[in-house]
Amino acid sequence: MPAARRSTFKRTPRTTGRRAPDRMRYQREAVYAILDEALVCHMGFVDGDGQPYVIPTLCARIEDELFLHGSAASRALRTMTSGLRVCVTATLVDGIILARSAFFHSINYRSAVVIGTATAITDPDEKLEALRLFTDHLVAPGRFNEVRPPSRTEFKGTMIARMAIEEASAKTRTGPPGDLEEDLDRDVWAGVIPLELKASAGVPAPDLRKGVPMPAYAANYDLKRARRS
Amino acid sequence: MPAARRSTFKRTPRTTGRRAPDRMRYQREAVYAILDEALVCHMGFVDGDGQPYVIPTLCARIEDELFLHGSAASRALRTMTSGLRVCVTATLVDGIILARSAFFHSINYRSAVVIGTATAITDPDEKLEALRLFTDHLVAPGRFNEVRPPSRTEFKGTMIARMAIEEASAKTRTGPPGDLEEDLDRDVWAGVIPLELKASAGVPAPDLRKGVPMPAYAANYDLKRARRS
Repeated sequence: MPAARRSTFKRTPRTTGRRAPDRMRYQREAVYAILDEALVCHMGFVDGDGQPYVIPTLCARIEDELFLHGSAASRALRTMTSGLRVCVTATLVDGIILARSAFFHSINYRSAVVIGTATAITDPDEKLEALRLFTDHLVAPGRFNEVRPPSRTEFKGTMIARMAIEEASAKTRTGPPGDLEEDLDRDVWAGVIPLELKASAGVPAPDLRKGVPMPAYAANYDLKRARRS
Repeated sequence: MPAARRSTFKRTPRTTGRRAPDRMRYQREAVYAILDEALVCHMGFVDGDGQPYVIPTLCARIEDELFLHGSAASRALRTMTSGLRVCVTATLVDGIILARSAFFHSINYRSAVVIGTATAITDPDEKLEALRLFTDHLVAPGRFNEVRPPSRTEFKGTMIARMAIEEASAKTRTGPPGDLEEDLDRDVWAGVIPLELKASAGVPAPDLRKGVPMPAYAANYDLKRARRS
């Protein structure tokens, strides 16, 4: 854990964006907002042969730690927690930028990159608490307490890795196209096509017991809320 | 280039999923459908110190190659094309699975992992063609011809990397929760919350020339169409 919580991440060569510095964000809250909205992150790790892998997984941020969820049998999570430096990235896509020139076509997005080491949670109490927080983060606060808790086998079969968020940065592009002055008069449409991940109303399982009502968090799942428990 | 186009990718230790074999897909068309729907992929590469990075970028598949787009000054793309083995992953999130037990909570998703080496396109004709295909893939067929082509400086400042899709697999989860028989009678809601990336109608740039109509591809952008040009 960091000795003191700072509002801004220290810029390191690994997390400092050099090419488009105006798009970089080093504030802890900017990074956290992206991690909180993302359901899935991409874990990057290297195997013994130097081959990098990028594997999607469920993620949840709790305080200054990032939690990654998977099977205890997963090669990805086992390699992720072997003590090597890893990278975890979350990306949200917000729009497509149509400019008057090919060059300025782009997308609006928000991404967060976290670098460090991850460890598997082994203490049973800590792991149960992490599982609870994880389920509540994915669905809604309180969900874990409504469902059957993990059996001994399920508990053993699940791995939760934790990673201190010590080295991180965010990169964002927002707003309209950034065309050159000399292109503004061109006879071509320019603007943004907004994109958004949207949830629709829950679809009951075909074998759902009759009479079980759909909870509000399934009828109106809100992807934009801070999904922290 | 592969000597002959096969409909199924050869399973290698790098792309074979062992933990949930029923979720793995090795058909070329299954991998391609995911790459085609994804606007953004995550590139994984390793720096000289063995540190892996995961960086989002625009991607486009054209035939049996994956194209990655970025700035020629981008450390990520320069490292990606340095001859080392890399990994590119695209993930689409389709839903949240609410089960009767904590353990079977999950998400519905489709992901594709491509492994290999990438090279920067240097031949000017080939690069211009790749830029055209890329813009058309991002927006709609024909867009490139409607806008100002890249200037000499812009052309030099853009890098497009290509990667032969030779080693790849897809992983998907679909359908309702997979609860245990013994949990079906529990008094808790179970089902799927469908998620989908959606586009809304284009928002004209504030400085758009008066009288330029919004094209159909901006008014009704279709993320689900095969975005191939």
